[in-house]
Amino acid sequence: MRYAILGTGIVGRTLASKLASLDHEVVIGTRDPRVTATRAESGGYGIVPFAEWQTAHPQISLASFSEAAADADVIVNATSGGVSVAALTEAGANNLAGKLLIDVANPLDFSHGMPPTLDPANTDSLGEQIQRAFPEAKVVKTLHTMNSQIMVEPTRVPGEHNVFVGGDDADAKAQVAALLGEFGWSPASIIDLGDITSARATEMMLPMWLRLWGTLGHPDYNFHIQGA
Amino acid sequence: MRYAILGTGIVGRTLASKLASLDHEVVIGTRDPRVTATRAESGGYGIVPFAEWQTAHPQISLASFSEAAADADVIVNATSGGVSVAALTEAGANNLAGKLLIDVANPLDFSHGMPPTLDPANTDSLGEQIQRAFPEAKVVKTLHTMNSQIMVEPTRVPGEHNVFVGGDDADAKAQVAALLGEFGWSPASIIDLGDITSARATEMMLPMWLRLWGTLGHPDYNFHIQGA
Repeated sequence: MRYAILGTGIVGRTLASKLASLDHEVVIGTRDPRVTATRAESGGYGIVPFAEWQTAHPQISLASFSEAAADADVIVNATSGGVSVAALTEAGANNLAGKLLIDVANPLDFSHGMPPTLDPANTDSLGEQIQRAFPEAKVVKTLHTMNSQIMVEPTRVPGEHNVFVGGDDADAKAQVAALLGEFGWSPASIIDLGDITSARATEMMLPMWLRLWGTLGHPDYNFHIQGA
Repeated sequence: MRYAILGTGIVGRTLASKLASLDHEVVIGTRDPRVTATRAESGGYGIVPFAEWQTAHPQISLASFSEAAADADVIVNATSGGVSVAALTEAGANNLAGKLLIDVANPLDFSHGMPPTLDPANTDSLGEQIQRAFPEAKVVKTLHTMNSQIMVEPTRVPGEHNVFVGGDDADAKAQVAALLGEFGWSPASIIDLGDITSARATEMMLPMWLRLWGTLGHPDYNFHIQGA
């Protein structure tokens, strides 16, 4: 499979690295590849400059959003939630049409300080916004309710815990379930919440996820629905 | 301990019945005791008329919000979230001052159809609204992230799962932890999320709780933070 990961942050890099290790072809999409490749400063949370990361991952290429999406079988939205629709618009609706679009982003709004709020929330969700903006894409919302390292290495958290899946297309969700299996998620750990409106519920778990991070002092935890 | 349970619905009745079985003195508070006692029709979800329920629980008395609160050591808000502040206002700020006020309500707004939305949400919470409206009460938000039968019988869901606690007063939270212990919650199952602003995070889990109910087809599940 040819994957386009849109977004050069820690989530995009973690997913790209894992997919490449599973022998998938991976291109990371960014607004301006030249700017991304030559940016010298580190990002937040101790993230190294992209060029330094790419030196360690020579099999992963960098391209514009549209170039990455055009050549891909599957697109992963790992951009910041606040700019996701703009980034996907740059990727091009025609490059998304008919394809699986895995949305792992959260619409966190940091403009009012910490902790971030959600925008949209409650009466809408980023997953739904993306599906509405790109009706021909097969949007599946998943993996966004945990730290990125757990996404690709679920055994990092011992014991049973869950990953949620929501989307309107059954085949696209089956494809995601298979990918989650490649990441190490057992069939029993995957909870299918139905259509893309379930993104409203799962995105609203983010404030709890963030609160727990502050309370526990580490991000190595995940939600488990006991009794499911 | 003398408990006043405000609210005559399934949550209030379940908590009242459990507290009475633990030999606590329990009064249920309602807007108009005469109306509640003589209402003949059943509530939703197969709930029997209050008088019929009370016949089976003769040790639990019924009083107005203010009478119930005035005589109580601890007040439990089990009213519908949309009317909680009004009900507590009827209970009387002076009857709440200095006391533990356990808030188990969720601000679900059914006025726009199903599923309900939250009001407030994201930038505020019912728990915070109540604490602001009654600054001398010691508000602790807890138990509202699960079905009421699990609140008082956690072993109904096999395996480990959690109850969350949030509030500004450490002594009040310790008192709640002791009560949760009486209900059967182990110390390890109780996660203290800090101050009352954590209600924002836990109340926002309700859309997920409701979505899971629809997905699983039963309410006997609970959130477990694996790795906590």
